[in-house]
Amino acid sequence: MEENKRTEISTLGEFGLIERLTAEMPLVNESSCKGVGDDAAVLHYGEKETLVTTDLLLEGVHFDLTYVPLAHLGYKAAVVNFSDIYAMNGTPKQITVSLGVSKRFSVEDMEQLYAGIRMACANYNVDIVGGDTTSSMTGLTISITCIGEADKEKIVYRNGAQENDLVCVSGDLGAAYMGLQLLEREKVAFAGQTDFTPEFGGKEYLLERQLKPEARRDIVASLAQAGIVPTAMMDISDGLSSELLHICKQSNVGCRVYEERIPIDYQTAIMAEELNMNLVTAALNGGEDYELLFTVPLSMHDAVSAIPGVKVIGHMTAPSLGSYLIARDGSEIQLRAQGWNPLSE
Amino acid sequence: MEENKRTEISTLGEFGLIERLTAEMPLVNESSCKGVGDDAAVLHYGEKETLVTTDLLLEGVHFDLTYVPLAHLGYKAAVVNFSDIYAMNGTPKQITVSLGVSKRFSVEDMEQLYAGIRMACANYNVDIVGGDTTSSMTGLTISITCIGEADKEKIVYRNGAQENDLVCVSGDLGAAYMGLQLLEREKVAFAGQTDFTPEFGGKEYLLERQLKPEARRDIVASLAQAGIVPTAMMDISDGLSSELLHICKQSNVGCRVYEERIPIDYQTAIMAEELNMNLVTAALNGGEDYELLFTVPLSMHDAVSAIPGVKVIGHMTAPSLGSYLIARDGSEIQLRAQGWNPLSE
Repeated sequence: MEENKRTEISTLGEFGLIERLTAEMPLVNESSCKGVGDDAAVLHYGEKETLVTTDLLLEGVHFDLTYVPLAHLGYKAAVVNFSDIYAMNGTPKQITVSLGVSKRFSVEDMEQLYAGIRMACANYNVDIVGGDTTSSMTGLTISITCIGEADKEKIVYRNGAQENDLVCVSGDLGAAYMGLQLLEREKVAFAGQTDFTPEFGGKEYLLERQLKPEARRDIVASLAQAGIVPTAMMDISDGLSSELLHICKQSNVGCRVYEERIPIDYQTAIMAEELNMNLVTAALNGGEDYELLFTVPLSMHDAVSAIPGVKVIGHMTAPSLGSYLIARDGSEIQLRAQGWNPLSE
Repeated sequence: MEENKRTEISTLGEFGLIERLTAEMPLVNESSCKGVGDDAAVLHYGEKETLVTTDLLLEGVHFDLTYVPLAHLGYKAAVVNFSDIYAMNGTPKQITVSLGVSKRFSVEDMEQLYAGIRMACANYNVDIVGGDTTSSMTGLTISITCIGEADKEKIVYRNGAQENDLVCVSGDLGAAYMGLQLLEREKVAFAGQTDFTPEFGGKEYLLERQLKPEARRDIVASLAQAGIVPTAMMDISDGLSSELLHICKQSNVGCRVYEERIPIDYQTAIMAEELNMNLVTAALNGGEDYELLFTVPLSMHDAVSAIPGVKVIGHMTAPSLGSYLIARDGSEIQLRAQGWNPLSE
């Protein structure tokens, strides 16, 4: 019977499910400019456009409280939303915070979580304007919605990349993922032991990237100062490969990015070596970097290269040429969205 | 040790926890007009004000899928957010929908849930503009944020009630709670049986109020048409007692409401009788009515009484007189916030 058809969600993955659920959903309100499909929705409520983004974090899926302090979790939960607003070339202004809390947690625990959220808000000049707090049967649930603003003509979507545009990334990639591997390794080593000292020496950068990421408003500011409005932009939360494919798909272009140009910190490289993991895979698919991936016209090569912390890693091509990584040996490896995607696990 | 202090969240309850977490949190952005403490936040992004509200629903806490169809759940999850926007005298315009989904659920299940959300959006002219979808370890999590708009001078907060204002409610109270009792009763009766036909005859109204509530935009429209801007307003989600106390506290007034004037449907009364429950307690503390509770100046008595579906149930007093229900026998019963509050259970 048709009614009893059961399709496993894992067969579609997160993006497939969203596409399926939100298909043929025309916007009816004048104030709705852009709906599902970018880092944030774009609403028209005034001279400036209003941006809205939201993130749902579930204990056991997105975070493990055996090694993540609650204050760090709060900070990160807020910052990842700010990152989505910056990725539209906007400025975050308000958040709402919804919490589902099991009896395992005390008021003091929630105060620590909130201390982290508040610190993030203070650092980024964002107001907490509302939320919902309720009990939960199992663990901690955090849902944050962020509202921001942007000049209409300066909003950067994922769909504006053109053939021959340069592909740029900020900072370095793969460190947050390696930080997670490190924490997981020490968790296993620690299991059942008392008086255990985790081996984090010389790897502080990896931990910081995993536990206390920052949104790249400095890069957004540098781009504005240089008079550069990217043709497409998004933040790297699921891994470079996955995000590049989003931009290629939505902009209807292909791309070539060069392995030798992908920025990787030396601590990331050392950790990959220790764990016997492929470094480039970690940088391409690791996720949670919260760096910016953006494209600019070829004519801006010198201007964009002059910005500290920005690296040109490749260029856009005709869509028929597909999306490939050029390895150090010159071979072409097709990019796949193997990113951090809990729904397809 | 101070650091190890553990205060159970149940000792504070939902509102106490929110107050504690959001204490001393000044708003820094010009566009943040009103933060935590009303049905929705108020933001200034244009000529009209922007309203934002959010709700987090967790399986096992807020809904039981043994008797709630997913489409109904989706409809309700959206409508309760619209209700918060109407309760500010605004109009809902956009929502974001975040879902946490365990492997128990199929794509078809999520399509049913979304069909309900979409139907609610279609009925209320609201756009779905974004969201987040992720896997969950246990059950279903739904987090919806709603954005709406309102004329600045027409926004109604909870803090504007004055002494001698009339207390009004729309529709009738307690039916959604009785619908829940009915569903729970049949669930217990059904347990372990096959081929069981639940006894819902003559109680369709209670089920509808529980499973498919509507937001009272008709009342908001009627008030506007009659030229009435309430002095205070909120929607009744946690029960009349709890909401009245919110308005009294925030407006610094007391109140007297009259048992004989509280609107109750006959099906609610019959069900209370069947279950041997106190009818007035159900109407005062039942929750999930999503009716509007508002106050108007005494001079508007005739105008507000003429609106179909609105009933004057009492009046505001000096704060020193406290908040009381006048029973049919003339005795005064102090109102208590015994409402539906999962955090204090």
